[in-house]
Amino acid sequence: MPRADQVLEPTSDPAWVLEQVGYDALRDSSRQSRFTVSNGFLGVRGGRTVNRQLHGLGTPYMLVAGLFETIGTDQPIPGLVQVPSWLRAHLSTPAGVPALHSDDSHIHRRTLDLRRGVLLTEGRLSSPSGLVISVRVLRLVSMSDRSSGLQLIQFEIEAGAGEVTLQTGFDGLDFGLNVDRLDEDRGVWHTTRLSHRLAIADLATLTLDGATIEANSLGPFSRAWKWHARAGQILWFERMVAVACSSRDVDPIQAVETSLHKSRTLGSRNCVSRHEAAWTERWRCSDVRVEGDPGAQQALRFACYHLNGAADPGNEYVSIAARGLTGNDYHGHVFWDTEIFLLPFYSLTWPEAARVLLMYRFHTLDQARAKARRLGYRGALYAWESADTGAEATPEHAIAADRQVVDILCGTLEQHIGADVAYAVWQYWQATGDEAFLRDAGAEILLESGRFWSSRAILEGDGLCHIQQVIGPDEYHERVDDNAYTNVMARWTIRRAIETATLLRSRWPECWSVLAGRLVIDDSELAQWSTVADTIVTGLDVATGLYEQFGGFFGLDPIDLSQYAGPSVPIDVVLGRERTAASQIVKQADVVALLALLPDEFDASTAAVNFDYYEPRCSHGSSLSRTMHALAAARMGSSSVALSFFRESAEIDLGDTKVAVDGGIHMAALGGSWLTAIFGFAGLSLLPAGLGFEPQLPSGWESLSFSVQWRGRQLSISIRQSDGTLDATLDAGEPMLIVLCGKQHEISRAGETRTFSSRR
Amino acid sequence: MPRADQVLEPTSDPAWVLEQVGYDALRDSSRQSRFTVSNGFLGVRGGRTVNRQLHGLGTPYMLVAGLFETIGTDQPIPGLVQVPSWLRAHLSTPAGVPALHSDDSHIHRRTLDLRRGVLLTEGRLSSPSGLVISVRVLRLVSMSDRSSGLQLIQFEIEAGAGEVTLQTGFDGLDFGLNVDRLDEDRGVWHTTRLSHRLAIADLATLTLDGATIEANSLGPFSRAWKWHARAGQILWFERMVAVACSSRDVDPIQAVETSLHKSRTLGSRNCVSRHEAAWTERWRCSDVRVEGDPGAQQALRFACYHLNGAADPGNEYVSIAARGLTGNDYHGHVFWDTEIFLLPFYSLTWPEAARVLLMYRFHTLDQARAKARRLGYRGALYAWESADTGAEATPEHAIAADRQVVDILCGTLEQHIGADVAYAVWQYWQATGDEAFLRDAGAEILLESGRFWSSRAILEGDGLCHIQQVIGPDEYHERVDDNAYTNVMARWTIRRAIETATLLRSRWPECWSVLAGRLVIDDSELAQWSTVADTIVTGLDVATGLYEQFGGFFGLDPIDLSQYAGPSVPIDVVLGRERTAASQIVKQADVVALLALLPDEFDASTAAVNFDYYEPRCSHGSSLSRTMHALAAARMGSSSVALSFFRESAEIDLGDTKVAVDGGIHMAALGGSWLTAIFGFAGLSLLPAGLGFEPQLPSGWESLSFSVQWRGRQLSISIRQSDGTLDATLDAGEPMLIVLCGKQHEISRAGETRTFSSRR
Repeated sequence: MPRADQVLEPTSDPAWVLEQVGYDALRDSSRQSRFTVSNGFLGVRGGRTVNRQLHGLGTPYMLVAGLFETIGTDQPIPGLVQVPSWLRAHLSTPAGVPALHSDDSHIHRRTLDLRRGVLLTEGRLSSPSGLVISVRVLRLVSMSDRSSGLQLIQFEIEAGAGEVTLQTGFDGLDFGLNVDRLDEDRGVWHTTRLSHRLAIADLATLTLDGATIEANSLGPFSRAWKWHARAGQILWFERMVAVACSSRDVDPIQAVETSLHKSRTLGSRNCVSRHEAAWTERWRCSDVRVEGDPGAQQALRFACYHLNGAADPGNEYVSIAARGLTGNDYHGHVFWDTEIFLLPFYSLTWPEAARVLLMYRFHTLDQARAKARRLGYRGALYAWESADTGAEATPEHAIAADRQVVDILCGTLEQHIGADVAYAVWQYWQATGDEAFLRDAGAEILLESGRFWSSRAILEGDGLCHIQQVIGPDEYHERVDDNAYTNVMARWTIRRAIETATLLRSRWPECWSVLAGRLVIDDSELAQWSTVADTIVTGLDVATGLYEQFGGFFGLDPIDLSQYAGPSVPIDVVLGRERTAASQIVKQADVVALLALLPDEFDASTAAVNFDYYEPRCSHGSSLSRTMHALAAARMGSSSVALSFFRESAEIDLGDTKVAVDGGIHMAALGGSWLTAIFGFAGLSLLPAGLGFEPQLPSGWESLSFSVQWRGRQLSISIRQSDGTLDATLDAGEPMLIVLCGKQHEISRAGETRTFSSRR
Repeated sequence: MPRADQVLEPTSDPAWVLEQVGYDALRDSSRQSRFTVSNGFLGVRGGRTVNRQLHGLGTPYMLVAGLFETIGTDQPIPGLVQVPSWLRAHLSTPAGVPALHSDDSHIHRRTLDLRRGVLLTEGRLSSPSGLVISVRVLRLVSMSDRSSGLQLIQFEIEAGAGEVTLQTGFDGLDFGLNVDRLDEDRGVWHTTRLSHRLAIADLATLTLDGATIEANSLGPFSRAWKWHARAGQILWFERMVAVACSSRDVDPIQAVETSLHKSRTLGSRNCVSRHEAAWTERWRCSDVRVEGDPGAQQALRFACYHLNGAADPGNEYVSIAARGLTGNDYHGHVFWDTEIFLLPFYSLTWPEAARVLLMYRFHTLDQARAKARRLGYRGALYAWESADTGAEATPEHAIAADRQVVDILCGTLEQHIGADVAYAVWQYWQATGDEAFLRDAGAEILLESGRFWSSRAILEGDGLCHIQQVIGPDEYHERVDDNAYTNVMARWTIRRAIETATLLRSRWPECWSVLAGRLVIDDSELAQWSTVADTIVTGLDVATGLYEQFGGFFGLDPIDLSQYAGPSVPIDVVLGRERTAASQIVKQADVVALLALLPDEFDASTAAVNFDYYEPRCSHGSSLSRTMHALAAARMGSSSVALSFFRESAEIDLGDTKVAVDGGIHMAALGGSWLTAIFGFAGLSLLPAGLGFEPQLPSGWESLSFSVQWRGRQLSISIRQSDGTLDATLDAGEPMLIVLCGKQHEISRAGETRTFSSRR
C-alpha cells in the first residue's frame, strides 16, 4: 500500500499546482476542462468523483484519441466519443439514512499537480447520523503506459460509526457504441464508423488496515463494498483501468489484458512512480522557467502541462485536436492549430511526438490528394478539419454565437492548411535533421503541397499568378482573392518543395528517382513551380511596404474598432456578418501571422508598418489571434506589447470571469504561449549549424530558462535580463553553434555551460 | 394487444401534427424540447429511443414537477433534477455483428401528434447480415393518470433472419439523488434538499405473435429479450412506468404501486384511450381554430398543446417553469411569466389548473412575506425566481451571452412580480367567480401584495409617492426610480387590494373580520393604501400623453436601433451593458406591457402615442417581448402589426434557422400567442355580467374560433372576417351577456348558438 501522505500530497511549490476550492456550478464545466489529466491517448476531464453529480450538469467524461463515431444523417461528421467516466465512487449509509455528499461541504478542494501529472481532490463528508469521513483522491492516466488509468482513494473515518457502502461504477455503459461484450470487469464495444474497437478492463480493491474487503458485483464495472465504519479507520481504495482502441492497438482486448496485468503486477505505488518518472522526463525536456513574473510562469507551466499531455509518440494515426483531449468542442477535429501553433513545441522539446503528428498527415495524404482532385487541382490539400481518416470533416453548418445556423465554407475554401502542414514538416526537418522522416514521408508531403499550390495559382492577364476565392485566417472575409497569408505561404511552400526536390536529388538520388517516378514529377514541372513562385502576387505595396490582406481590402469600410471596445463578444456578432465582411475588421492575425511565421521574409520596417496597420484592425475573434500577435510583437522586439497579448491569451483558459472553456482548453493558445516565450522573447531561430537567439525579455522578467533539442542535441538555455547574458548548456550531443544576436559561439562539450553576452 | 396500425398511426390532418424526418445533430436538442410529451407532472423530452445516442449529445431526460435538488456550494440554488430517460431500447445481433442503428437510415421520422398528446417515431434498421427491421414507437405520459408513462414499440422483421437481442434500461440510475432502494423494477431515491422522495416502477413485456418472450434481468430496470428473428415476424413491446414524488404524492412508493397496478389492469390499449380521452377533453375546452392562416393555426395548436401539457390540476405545490417541463433552462424556476403570460389561458379554458397555480403562490406566501420583511417592507413580495419552497431562487451570477460571468440583481430589485401575481389572482377571480378561492387564498395574496406596495412607495418632498431602485421588465436598466410598469401595476394592485377588502367586508363580513384580524389590517391602514394609490407617480406627461419608462429615461442616449438591424443578438451584447444602460433601448415590453395588460387605463390616443414611442426603442431581448407587443397592438386594433409580432414570436420555438430552444420551449411566448388571439384579435374582456369582444382579425384570417369558460359557463365562439359576425354558443351553464363592440346580447339557453354582428 502506498503511503497516503506521499501520493496524495500535492507538490508544495505553488508554481507547480493549480488549485480550486469549493464547487461553483456555473464554472464547473470550464474547470473540468482546465483540470483534465491526459496522456495523448486518454483524456479524463476534471470532474469530481466522490459525490453526486446531477445528470447533464457537466457530467465528467473521458475522450480516447482516435475513437470517432458518426452521428446524424443531416450532417454525418465524425466526432470523438464521450466515454463515460470510470471514476465514479459513491458512499452511502443504510436505506433511509441520507448518503454522504461532499457537495454539501465547503472544504472540497481540487489540485492539479502539473509536475506529477495527477489530479488530487479532497473533501469531508458527513451524515446526519454523525459519521464524518474525509476523502482524498488521486487520479491519473499514465504517461508510462498510455492505456492505463489509476484512481486511489483514502477514506478516513474521523467520527461516528455505522455501516457504510462504497459503490463504484461507470456513469453508463451505452455511450453510442455497439456493445460486443460486457462482463463484470471487461467490456468491448465497436463503432459503426470504420468499426473501431474499444476495450476497457478494470480492477478495484478496497482494503481496511491492510485487509481486503470483499466486493459484491452489481453488474458490469459496478461493485459495492460494505463495512462497519468507526472512527479512526483508514480505508484505501484502488482502481486500475486499462483502455485500448484499435485506432492505436492492433488487438485492443489483448492490449487491455496486458496493460492491466502489468499494472496489477507492478502495484499502484509503482504505477504512480513510473508515471511520475515519465512526467519528470517530459519536464526535463520542456520546462520553461520565468523569474519575476509568477503569472507568466503559471501560464507557461499550464501550457507545457497540456502540451505534454496531448501527444502520444506511440500512435501515428491520430493528431491533436483543437481542444486536445480536454473537451468535445469541434468534435475532436484537427485544424492548422496543430501544425502552426503546437508543432514547434514538439519539434524542439519532443521530436518523437512531433514526428508522429506529421506521420498522421502523411498517412492521410491520399485523402488530401482526393480533396485537391475533387476541387480541380493537382497535388494534395489537407482537410480543413481532419478526424480519423483525414477526409474533410468540416461540418457544413454550425450554430453561431447568436444561435443562428450558418453555413461553414472553410472545408472548401480555407486552403492555407495546405501550406501550414508543409511549414511544420520543414520546421521539423530543420529542427531535428530527421533524414529518415524527410525521405520516407516529409518530402512527399512537401512535394504534393507544392504541386497543389502550383496548380492552384493561376496565371492571369497581368502576367502574374493569382489565387482566387479563398478564406484566409481572417474568416470574416469569405471568397477573397489573393489573400496575403495564403499567397505568401503558398510561395514559401512551393519554394520548399523545389528545395526538397533539389535536396533529395543531390543527397539521396535513388530515393528521389523512386519518389519522382511515383509522383510523376519531372524537371519541366519543377520549372513551372518555380515560375509560379516567382510570379505569385503577394499584395505588397512597394511604396508603403504594406501587404494588402486580399485584393480590395484597402477599399473596405475602415470601421474604428476602438469605438466598440465595450462588448466582449466577437465583432461579427456585434455588427452582423454582412457588415463585418464589408469592413476592414480582421478576425485574427492574418498578415500579422506572416510576420510571426516567416520573419526572414520581412525587414524590420516592413514588419513594423504592417503590424501597426493590422493590429488595430484585429478584433481577436479567435483564440489563435492574440498569441500570434504576441509572437509577432516579440519577434519585432516590442516586448511590452507582446507581453500584454501573451497575458490576454493566457487568460482564455486560466481566467475565471469568462466561462468559455466548457468544451475544452485552447491548445493553440497554449502552444502559442510557448512559442511567444521561446521564438519570441528568447528570439530562437533554426540555423543550418545551430540555434540563433535574439533575446528581448519583457521588462518584468528577470530570467527565462528552458530546454530545447536541436538535431540530436539537448540544450539548456538561460537568459538573464540584468546583464543581458545567455547561459547555454549542451546537455547531450555533438558540438554546435549558438548564434547570439548575430555573433557565433561554439559549444563543443556535453555538460559544458557557457555564458555569452547579448550586448552588441 | 392494441392494433398497431391504430395507436401507431398519427392523426392524418396536418394541422394536428408536427413532423420531422432525419436526424440533425445540430438541431436535435432544440427538437427534443419541441417534441416533449408532458402532463404537468412528467415531461419527457423528444429524444429518440431506439438507436444509439452519443453520450452528452442531447441525451434525453425527464423532468418531474417539484423534484428540485441543490448543487454547488458557491451558488446553492435549487434546480429540477434531470431524471434519465426510461425509454431506451437497443437492438443488437450476436457479438461481432454490428448492432442495428436507425442513425444510419434516412427514413427516421418523428411525429408529435398534438391532438392525441403522443410522440410517434419510426425508422428502419438493417444489419450487415441482412436483417431489416422496421420500428415504430409510441410514447406518452398520461393525461388521465399523471404518474404514468407508456412506451409501445412494434418491431417488424422485414427481411433476413438471425438472433436478435432487445435490451432496455434507463440511461443511468445515479442522477444526483440519494438511492434508498434499487430493485429489478422498483427504485426509490431522495433529494438532500427537503428530502423529497422519488419512486419509479416499471413493467415491460415483449410478445411475438401474442406469446410472451421471457426477459432476462440485467440489473435494476435493465432487461434483455432474445429471439430468433425471421422475416414476417411482428413483435410488440410494451413498457409501463410509474413515477411518483413526495412533492405531489404523500407516499410515493404506494403511489407508483397503485399507478402501475392500474395500468397493468387496464392494459396498454385502455391506457392509451383514457389518455386520449383526457386530451380530447382538453382540446374541447381550449382549441383555437384559424381559417386562412395555416402558420398561425400551427402556432396556436402548438401553444395550446404545450400549455395543456404544462399544468397539473392535482398539485397545489408546483407551478409552471419558464420552460415548462420541456428543458432545464432556468433550472425549472417559476417567473412572472406564469401569472402574466400563462394564467389567462388557464383561467379561461382550465380553471382547475389556474386555481392550483395560484394556490402554489398562496402556499409560498410566507416566503414572500419573509422576502418583503428582509428588504425592509411590509406585506408580501414573491421571489423573482421561485422553486419548491418559494424562497428567492434567483442565482446571484449567470453566464451572459458573451460568456462573461455577470451579477444578477433581479432577485432583489425586480419587484413587479409582487403586482403580477396579484394581477393573475384578480383576473382568475373575475373569470371564474371562484368565491372559495378568493376567500380562502386569493384575498390574502391581494391584501398582502397591496400592503407591500403601500409600504414600498415612499412619500417624498414633492407630495407624491415614489418607488425607487427597482428593475422593471426592461432589465437593461437596473436600479431605476419610478418604473412606469412597476408603479402603475403597484397602484392597480393597491386598488384591487382595497376593492378586495371592501368586497369581503360587505359580502363575507365574518371572513373579513377573521382575515383582517389575522393580518392586522384596519381602516387607517386601508386609508393609507388609498392615499398611496392616489399619489403614486406614474411617469405620465399630460402634455404629450407619454409615460416616461422611469425617471430620467427621456434624457438617455436615443440610440437608433434601426442602425443595428443586422445582428440577431441582444443589443446589450452588441453595445455592451454599460452603453445599453445609458441608452433609451428597451429590452422588452415595459410601458407597452401596461397597454396590453391594463387597456382600460389608457384611452386610444394615449395607447397609440406610447406604442409608437416605445415600439421602435424595443430590442426584444427577451422571448416575452414580441408577444406582448402583439397583444398590445391587437388590442389597439393594429392587426397587421400585431400579426407580424405574433409570427415572430411563434418562430422562437418553431423556427429552425435559430437554435435556441435546447433548454426548453418558451412557455410565456406560447401563452402570449393564445393571449394575442383571444384577448387581442378577438378582443375578449372580462365584464361583470359576461364577456366582451371587440374582434379585429388580421386580414388573412377568414375566421377565428375558440372555446372559453366564464364563471361556470362553457362557450364556443366563432368570429368570421367576411361578414363581421360572431357566433356564440353557450355549451353549458347559466345565461350570461355577450357584449360585442359595446352592444349587449344575452345568451340564455345552453346549446343555443346565436349570431351577432360586430358591424357598428
